[in-house]
Amino acid sequence: LLVSFAVASCGGAETPPPAAPPGVCAPGPVASTPTPGSAAQAAALPPPSFPETDEGMWLFNGFPADRVQKRHGFAPDKAWLDHVRLSAVRLAGGCSGSVVSPNGLVMTNHHCAEACIQQLSTPKKDFMAQGFSARSEADEVKCPEIELNQLTDMTDVTERISAATKGLSGAAFHQAMRAEKNKIEKECATGDTVRCDVVDLYHGGLYHLYKYRRFQDVRLVFAPEFPIAFFGGDPDNFNFPRYDLDMSFLRIYENGKPLHPDHYLKWSKDGAKEGDLTFVAGHPGRTDRQLTIAQLENERDFGVPWSISTLAQSRGEVTEFSARGKEQRRVGRGRLFGIENGLKVMKGRLEALVDKDFFGQKVAEERDLRARVDANPELKAQVGGAWDAIAAAQKEKRNLTKPYALLEGGRRGAGAFDSALFAHARTLVRAAAEKDKPNDKRLPEYGEAKLPAVKMRALSTAPVYEDLEIVTLGASLVRLREELGPDHPIVKKVLGKDEPRELAARLVKGSKLADLKTRKALFEGGKATVDASKDPMIVLAKLIDDDARAVRTAYEDKVEAVETAAGELIAKARFAVYGTSVYPDATFTLRLSFGKVAGWEEAGQPVAPFTTMGGAFERHTGKEPFALPASWLAAKDKLDPKAPFDFVTTNDIIGGNSGSPMVDKNGEVVGLVFDGNIHSLGGDYGYEPKNNRTVSVHSSAIVTALDKVYGQSRLVSELKR
Amino acid sequence: LLVSFAVASCGGAETPPPAAPPGVCAPGPVASTPTPGSAAQAAALPPPSFPETDEGMWLFNGFPADRVQKRHGFAPDKAWLDHVRLSAVRLAGGCSGSVVSPNGLVMTNHHCAEACIQQLSTPKKDFMAQGFSARSEADEVKCPEIELNQLTDMTDVTERISAATKGLSGAAFHQAMRAEKNKIEKECATGDTVRCDVVDLYHGGLYHLYKYRRFQDVRLVFAPEFPIAFFGGDPDNFNFPRYDLDMSFLRIYENGKPLHPDHYLKWSKDGAKEGDLTFVAGHPGRTDRQLTIAQLENERDFGVPWSISTLAQSRGEVTEFSARGKEQRRVGRGRLFGIENGLKVMKGRLEALVDKDFFGQKVAEERDLRARVDANPELKAQVGGAWDAIAAAQKEKRNLTKPYALLEGGRRGAGAFDSALFAHARTLVRAAAEKDKPNDKRLPEYGEAKLPAVKMRALSTAPVYEDLEIVTLGASLVRLREELGPDHPIVKKVLGKDEPRELAARLVKGSKLADLKTRKALFEGGKATVDASKDPMIVLAKLIDDDARAVRTAYEDKVEAVETAAGELIAKARFAVYGTSVYPDATFTLRLSFGKVAGWEEAGQPVAPFTTMGGAFERHTGKEPFALPASWLAAKDKLDPKAPFDFVTTNDIIGGNSGSPMVDKNGEVVGLVFDGNIHSLGGDYGYEPKNNRTVSVHSSAIVTALDKVYGQSRLVSELKR
Repeated sequence: LLVSFAVASCGGAETPPPAAPPGVCAPGPVASTPTPGSAAQAAALPPPSFPETDEGMWLFNGFPADRVQKRHGFAPDKAWLDHVRLSAVRLAGGCSGSVVSPNGLVMTNHHCAEACIQQLSTPKKDFMAQGFSARSEADEVKCPEIELNQLTDMTDVTERISAATKGLSGAAFHQAMRAEKNKIEKECATGDTVRCDVVDLYHGGLYHLYKYRRFQDVRLVFAPEFPIAFFGGDPDNFNFPRYDLDMSFLRIYENGKPLHPDHYLKWSKDGAKEGDLTFVAGHPGRTDRQLTIAQLENERDFGVPWSISTLAQSRGEVTEFSARGKEQRRVGRGRLFGIENGLKVMKGRLEALVDKDFFGQKVAEERDLRARVDANPELKAQVGGAWDAIAAAQKEKRNLTKPYALLEGGRRGAGAFDSALFAHARTLVRAAAEKDKPNDKRLPEYGEAKLPAVKMRALSTAPVYEDLEIVTLGASLVRLREELGPDHPIVKKVLGKDEPRELAARLVKGSKLADLKTRKALFEGGKATVDASKDPMIVLAKLIDDDARAVRTAYEDKVEAVETAAGELIAKARFAVYGTSVYPDATFTLRLSFGKVAGWEEAGQPVAPFTTMGGAFERHTGKEPFALPASWLAAKDKLDPKAPFDFVTTNDIIGGNSGSPMVDKNGEVVGLVFDGNIHSLGGDYGYEPKNNRTVSVHSSAIVTALDKVYGQSRLVSELKR
Repeated sequence: LLVSFAVASCGGAETPPPAAPPGVCAPGPVASTPTPGSAAQAAALPPPSFPETDEGMWLFNGFPADRVQKRHGFAPDKAWLDHVRLSAVRLAGGCSGSVVSPNGLVMTNHHCAEACIQQLSTPKKDFMAQGFSARSEADEVKCPEIELNQLTDMTDVTERISAATKGLSGAAFHQAMRAEKNKIEKECATGDTVRCDVVDLYHGGLYHLYKYRRFQDVRLVFAPEFPIAFFGGDPDNFNFPRYDLDMSFLRIYENGKPLHPDHYLKWSKDGAKEGDLTFVAGHPGRTDRQLTIAQLENERDFGVPWSISTLAQSRGEVTEFSARGKEQRRVGRGRLFGIENGLKVMKGRLEALVDKDFFGQKVAEERDLRARVDANPELKAQVGGAWDAIAAAQKEKRNLTKPYALLEGGRRGAGAFDSALFAHARTLVRAAAEKDKPNDKRLPEYGEAKLPAVKMRALSTAPVYEDLEIVTLGASLVRLREELGPDHPIVKKVLGKDEPRELAARLVKGSKLADLKTRKALFEGGKATVDASKDPMIVLAKLIDDDARAVRTAYEDKVEAVETAAGELIAKARFAVYGTSVYPDATFTLRLSFGKVAGWEEAGQPVAPFTTMGGAFERHTGKEPFALPASWLAAKDKLDPKAPFDFVTTNDIIGGNSGSPMVDKNGEVVGLVFDGNIHSLGGDYGYEPKNNRTVSVHSSAIVTALDKVYGQSRLVSELKR
C-alpha cells in the first residue's frame, strides 16, 4: 500500500529528504547557493526528446496543462487546480486525503487511519476487527495523533536561502541554512493553526515556502472492518486484481464544531469508466529519480539490501509475537502491516535496481545529461565535477549510514531504540534542550514553527503495548550490537554487561512514560525537570544524545552537504539542458498526476481494469486474509455482482499517495487511491509506462458499501449532497 | 562457523553440486562427454602467472608439494599424505573431523556434534547447557544421526562416465549419467560398511569414485558447555579475537567395541607457534570460484539476496519463539544457530560480490581466460560458446530457482515444507517409490549404495519438537504462497481454503511420524503401506510429489544440464590454458590446504595471531553470550592467563571445514579448525590472501581445558598416548 514508509517512521513530524537513509528522521538537506538555470543549447547533440507518457508527479504551480491537453484533450485551468489543491489534505503521518463534503468530511484510506482506529481500540472493543461507525456527530471520536494539513500558499524563497548561505561552506553553511529556514518558517507560522515548511524541490534547485492550515481536531467517523479494508492481506498487497474497501472517513472540527470548508470535492454520479482521464492529487513521499548512478549503486548494493534484511527479521519477530495469542495479534497487527508493506516495497526496489534494462536506462540518461553538459564549456566548468563529488561521498555514506540510522532512526525501520517509550523520551529530552536555544540554532524539527506538532506527539493519548515494546526494543538493541560490534564504545555504554532483551524489559517496565501526566510534567517542566528525571528511558535518551547528535552532524556535513550541493548543480544543469518542463522528485509535497483508466498485459494475458463485487465473494475462503466480514456475507444478495469494486489507471504515484482522491476532468471524485500494482514498485527510480498502474477503490463501490452493507444513509446523503 | 550450510539442509544425505540453489538437496550434476585437456599454448598473450599465496583447497592426489616446498620449505611425501588422509573423517551432516587416538577417539567441533548433544538432551537433562562427560566407555552414548566416513580410495572414472553418455543430450543424457553413476556406486558399495560416491571435480572436468569406510555407531564422549564452546555467540561469530572452546570428542565403535584404527593423528607437544607451517585436512562444502560472471551476477542479484531475506525472517521467527520460555529456548537453539550462521555467511558473500575491486578481479580473470581461448582457434571452436550458453541459462535459473528450492528444498533454508516430520514423510514416500525401481532409474540419493544412509535417516531416534515444527512449517507455507502467489495451482492444492499456520498445526498434530514404530512400519512396508497411509504428513508428501519431481527435472534439464555441459568445456579450457596445477572447486570432498600462523591488520591496527585464556575472563560479562560457565569460573586460578586459547592462520578453508584437524609438518595436531574471520566470508568466490584467516582452537587449550577445567584425565592420557 502507498503509505509513505520513510515518513511513517518519523512520528509524523518530518519527511526525510531523499538523501537520508531509510528509516532515518532527518531535517531538510543543506544546500549551496542555487542559481536559476539559463536555457543553454548543448552543441553537437540532437535535441532531447521526452517520451509521451503519463509520467510525472507535478507541482500544482508547474502543471503541464498543454501536455495533458495534447495527450488527453483536456487542460485544467487555474480555478480547477486551485479548487482541487484546496480540497486536498495531507495526513502528517505519511498519507493523503481530501475534503468531500461541506461539513468537513475527509476521505482517506483505512490504512491511513489505522493508527487512530487501533489507538481507540481496547482488548474488549476492537474497532479494527469490528469496524467503526458513528451514527451521529456525537459518536465521532477524536484521533489521538492525526493532524491534517491543507496547502494554502506556496512562495519561492530560493533567493532568501541563497543570500543567507552565500559564500559559506561546511558547518557554517549548514548552520546558516538551518537558521534561515527556521526563521522563514517562524515568520510564516502565525499561531497554532498554521504550519510552514521550507521545502526543497529539484534537490535544491528551488526552495519554496509551503504554508498549510493545520487541523489537529480530527475525528473518526467511519471505518469498515480490517478484513475487507485489506482483503487479501499481504499476499494480495501490490497485486491486482484486487477487492479492497480500503477507505475511512474522518471529520475536521474547529472549536468543537465541524468545519465548513470553502472547498470540497463533489462526488461523481457514475465514477470512472475504461479510458477516462483521471487525476490524482496527493502527497507522494519520496522518489529517487534524479539520483546519480553512484547514488543508485549505493542503494542497490548497500541501502536496499540492508533494509530488506532488517525488515525481514522484524517481520519474523512480530509474526511470531502475534502468534502468541489474540491480544498480541491485535496489538501487533498495525506494526506487522507496516513491516510487510515496507518489505514488499524494498524487494520491488531491489528488483528494479538489478534489472539490467532498467538500470541501463538510468545509466543512459545520466550519460546523455553529462554529454550535454560537457558540450557546453560554461556549464561544464560550473557543474562538471558534481557527479564525481557525489560518487566520492558514497564512501562516507557507506560508513555513516548504519550509525546514523541506528542512533537517529525513528520508531520503525532500522533504529537501535525501536520503542514508542524511547521515542517519547527522545522527544522530551530534545524538546527540553532545544526550546532553551534561540530559534535559529535549533534542530529543525524543534523550530518554533514545529512546536505544535512536537507537543501533539509528546502528549499523545495513544496506548503503549508493553510486551510488544520489549520485543522491538530488545531486537533493536541486538541490532545495535550486531552492526557496530560488541566492542564499540556506544554499544558498551548502552548495554554495559547486560543482555539486550533483559535490558529492554527493564527499561520498558521501569519507565513511567506511558503515563500522560508524567510526560506532561516533563514536557512542561523543561530542561531542569528532564535533567533531574530518573526514568530509565529518559536516562537512556540522555545517555546517547551527544553520540546521536554527533553522528547526525557527521552525516549532514560529510554526506548530505556534498550530495545536496552537487545535487543543486546537477539540477541546474538539468534546467539548462532540458528546460523547466520536468517535475521535481517527490518530497511529501502536494502533487498532481494524470492518467487514464486502463488494464495491462501480464505474461501475455490481459488484465482487465476493473474488478467486481462478485469477485470478492469468489475469492472468499473464510480464512484470513481471504475472509469477508459477516456484514458482507449478510449483504451479499443486496450487492450487484457485476458492480465495480477496484480499478487501475496509468497515474504516476508512490508511497504517500495512499488516500489520494482520484478525480475526473470535472474535479469530481471517481475513486480513492490505495495502492500500486507490482510494476509500480520500481517507481522510486523511474516511471514504467507500459505496466505501472495505480489501484483505487471505485467511487460507486464506496457509496454502495456505505449504503447496502453498512446502512450509513447519513454519510451517503452527505457525500451526494 | 564453518559448518557446510548447504549440506546441513539435506538431512546429511548428499551434498548439492555447485549448480544447485541454496537450500536445495540435489543429485550430482549431469555432464556431457568430458575430454582431458591437452596443454595448448595461447598465442600473442603473456604466459599466465599465479599469485604466490597460500590459496587452494587441494586434492590429496593432486597436492602441489613443490609449491609448498618453495614457499614454506617443506614438502609432504606420499606416506605423509596417506597418513593424514586416512586419519581424517567426514561427518555426513556437513563437517570434518579426525581420529586422534588408537582407540578410535574422534575430535571435531562442538557445533558439529551439536545435533547429537541436543538430540540426547531432554527438558530435564540439557547436555547443551551442562556439557556431556563420559567418565568411562560405558557412559559413552550413541548419536542418533551421526555417520562418519573415512576416505579409503579414489579412482578416476571419467572415461566410464564419458562412454555412457557419449552422443547423448538433454533428458537421455541425464538419465544415462544417473544410471551409470548409480551403477558404479553400487558395484563399489559392497555391504553396509562401504559408502561410494561418484564425485565431480572441476565442474565435470574429472569424475572420481570416492570410496569411504562408513561408521554408523558413533558415540558421544565429551562436550563442554555450549556457553564456552560458542563463547561470544552470534556477535563474535566469524570475528577474531575469539575465545571459544569449540570442541567435542566422539568415538567410533564397531561390533560394540571401540575401533582400533590403522591411522590416527598424534598430539603435538607444544602446538602451533607464530610463523609455523600449518596444514588443514578437511571437507570444504562448496566454493563457487570457477563460476562464470553471468553465474556470479545471478548469485549477487537474486540468489544471495533471496537467501538473506529468507534467513533473516526465519531468524526473527525462531528468536521470538525462543523467547517464549526456557524449553522453547532449548529446542530452538540449534536451529537458531544454523540460521544465524548461514545469515552471516550470506551477508559476507553479498559484501564480496558487491565489492567493485573483488568483482572486477573476477571479471578480469574471465576476460584473461576467454582471451586465451579466443587466441587458440581449435580451443575457441570447441569451447568458445560455453560462456554464452551459461549466460542464457541464467534466465531459466531465475524462473526455476524459487519453485525448485520451495518444492525440493531441505529442512533448513528456503523450502516450503520446513518440518522434520515432513522430511520423514518425503523420505518414506520416495524410498517406497524408488526402491521398486531398477537401480539405474532411481533418484541418485535413493540408489542402492545410498540406502544405508536413507535407512539411518528414516529410523532416526532424534526427537521432534512439535511447537517448533508448527512455527517453521507454518512460516514456510506462507513463503510458498508468497513466492508462487495465492492463485498458483500448487498453492491452491496445498492450502485449499486453509490458513497456512492453522494447516501446519493440523498436519503436525495429526501426524504420527514422530513415533519410530510408525516410521519403521512404513519404511519396511514399502509402497503399498505408504500408499494406504492416511497420516496427514504422508498424504501431503504424496500430494506434491509429482509437482516436486517435475520442477526438479525442469531445473536439471534446463539449468544444470546446460551449466554442467558448458562448465565442463570451460574446465577443459582452463586445463588447456593454465595446465592442471589448479585446484577444483570444493564439493564436500577431502582437501588439504596449507598456510602459516599469522595475524593481520584491521583498520591499520595489527591483530595478534593468538588469544589467551586470560582474555576470556576479561570478556566475561555474566550474560549470554558472554557468560563463562561455572566450571571455568571455578577453575580460573588453575589456568595460566597467558596460555594460548584460539589462533589464526592463512589456510584457505570454507564451510564444511569445521572440525578439521590442523597439523604441523610432522602430521601432529596443533589445532582444531572451527571458523574463519570476517574476511574469509567472500571465500566462496575467491581467496583473499591479505586478510583471510582460519580460526582454530589451540591444541594446548584443548588439553588444558580437559585437564584443569573438566578433570578429564582419561581423555588427556588417551590424547597424549
